[in-house]
Amino acid sequence: MPSNWFTEKHEASGSSIGYRVDDKLAEASTPFQHIEIYRTTDWGNLMVIDGCVMLTSRDNFLYHEMMTHPALYTHAAPRNVVIIGGGDCGTLREVLRHPDVESVVQIDIDEQVTRLAEKYFPELCESNADPRAKLLFDDGIKYMADAAPDSLDVVFVDSTDPVGPAEGLFNAKFYASCFRALREGGILVQQSESPLVLLDLIQSMHKAMREVGFSTTRTLPFPQPCYPTGWWSCTLARKGGGLDAFREQDAAAKPFATRYYNADMHRAALAQPEFMRSALHT
Amino acid sequence: MPSNWFTEKHEASGSSIGYRVDDKLAEASTPFQHIEIYRTTDWGNLMVIDGCVMLTSRDNFLYHEMMTHPALYTHAAPRNVVIIGGGDCGTLREVLRHPDVESVVQIDIDEQVTRLAEKYFPELCESNADPRAKLLFDDGIKYMADAAPDSLDVVFVDSTDPVGPAEGLFNAKFYASCFRALREGGILVQQSESPLVLLDLIQSMHKAMREVGFSTTRTLPFPQPCYPTGWWSCTLARKGGGLDAFREQDAAAKPFATRYYNADMHRAALAQPEFMRSALHT
Repeated sequence: MPSNWFTEKHEASGSSIGYRVDDKLAEASTPFQHIEIYRTTDWGNLMVIDGCVMLTSRDNFLYHEMMTHPALYTHAAPRNVVIIGGGDCGTLREVLRHPDVESVVQIDIDEQVTRLAEKYFPELCESNADPRAKLLFDDGIKYMADAAPDSLDVVFVDSTDPVGPAEGLFNAKFYASCFRALREGGILVQQSESPLVLLDLIQSMHKAMREVGFSTTRTLPFPQPCYPTGWWSCTLARKGGGLDAFREQDAAAKPFATRYYNADMHRAALAQPEFMRSALHT
Repeated sequence: MPSNWFTEKHEASGSSIGYRVDDKLAEASTPFQHIEIYRTTDWGNLMVIDGCVMLTSRDNFLYHEMMTHPALYTHAAPRNVVIIGGGDCGTLREVLRHPDVESVVQIDIDEQVTRLAEKYFPELCESNADPRAKLLFDDGIKYMADAAPDSLDVVFVDSTDPVGPAEGLFNAKFYASCFRALREGGILVQQSESPLVLLDLIQSMHKAMREVGFSTTRTLPFPQPCYPTGWWSCTLARKGGGLDAFREQDAAAKPFATRYYNADMHRAALAQPEFMRSALHT
């Protein structure tokens, strides 16, 4: 651990992000990936998978709130939800804040991510025992391929980068499974990398999502310091219906606390920077 | 240059940002600071002052557009403008895109910043010969203390961090000079660091700005990958009048190209994340 900094060098963008750490708390090699947990001096605990920063205690609220609340306040009544990936359980926790939600199935391929999150990010796992939640450790691609048609309201794809285990989550075949499993008005939400660096990936996601039948697609940018460039996004695709309007009054009167999301920030995230508007024609 | 990466370790936040570089293009020790220019593999040229990343060719548009256009489209008719700092001339270039602007005086304490920008960031300096622009290399604090009362419409404080030469730009005495020099409806704009890490600085800026007479203050967050946490902000203070409304039609019909800013992004930047709303009471 040279100089007590953990640094992720993101080769694709020629940039790096690092954290000052004072201890390595855990390390696990699983059949799927290599997981490390560090204690940082200023960002709480840090989870690293295959050398890539996954989350820190301090800034994960940005990602988890923006992955979940925009879609859940866009859908009229989200009852049945699936999370593909999401093993740290932060997305699950935010989804369960919504009283409309009746069931959430989370399918992460690697049980060790959740076991380590329970120990080192207990605040993210505080809702894991909610009777509405079911945690599976299995192949999310297969789960969605086998899912009953018209059975879901929102599918969250909270995965690692589109290489390795997550590669099969970024293509038309997987999107077609999601489309079929969603009810009319249902929404697919996928983490979609840095708009500055991976705009071509985002473009191809929009294209593939529309090809399989989604009527509307939209990329919402948000800050996320621990990911390359510190600027991240999620992309929403809807099966019938738009993504501009949302339940603004419900969002403004949300019955739970957030640190980033609110109705104004939801509207703000729908705005598209000029270069994204040009590239995505939204 | 270990492994050909330039890395800024930001001690205050225990985080670092780095770039893969393949050459050091220039280095200068001035009476004020130490300046380095690197060529990166993916971000164009990189300017570093006293070890801190100042800008890269690739992502400076975010900062320069958000420092300038929101204030200039909020003011009804910005004619006389001052830039304190801003030696790379990127802010100056954006200001001069506004046809209403009749004069811009830029006062940076260190001429070498501009001389190096002319050579290594020529695109930012392309408007330096505009007859409306005047470049001074002098003490911006003294310049504002001596400025004629009610003579300016917008003052931009485009400085380094609030330590060293820029320290005197972040206090009530300096703000009082700006307030006096601004006409009614005039706007002070100051770069205000990372909202996630330096929220206490932003709070103290708002307080000091209001103490000297500014009627409205507002912090606008925006992504800026090359600065600590990748999330940055500017803070606006207005001498009479608000900061919520702006010339939306003019912004929507702006007679120049941008890559981030547009009328929607202006409105979006006015939205406040929950934790900022709580801290700043805006």
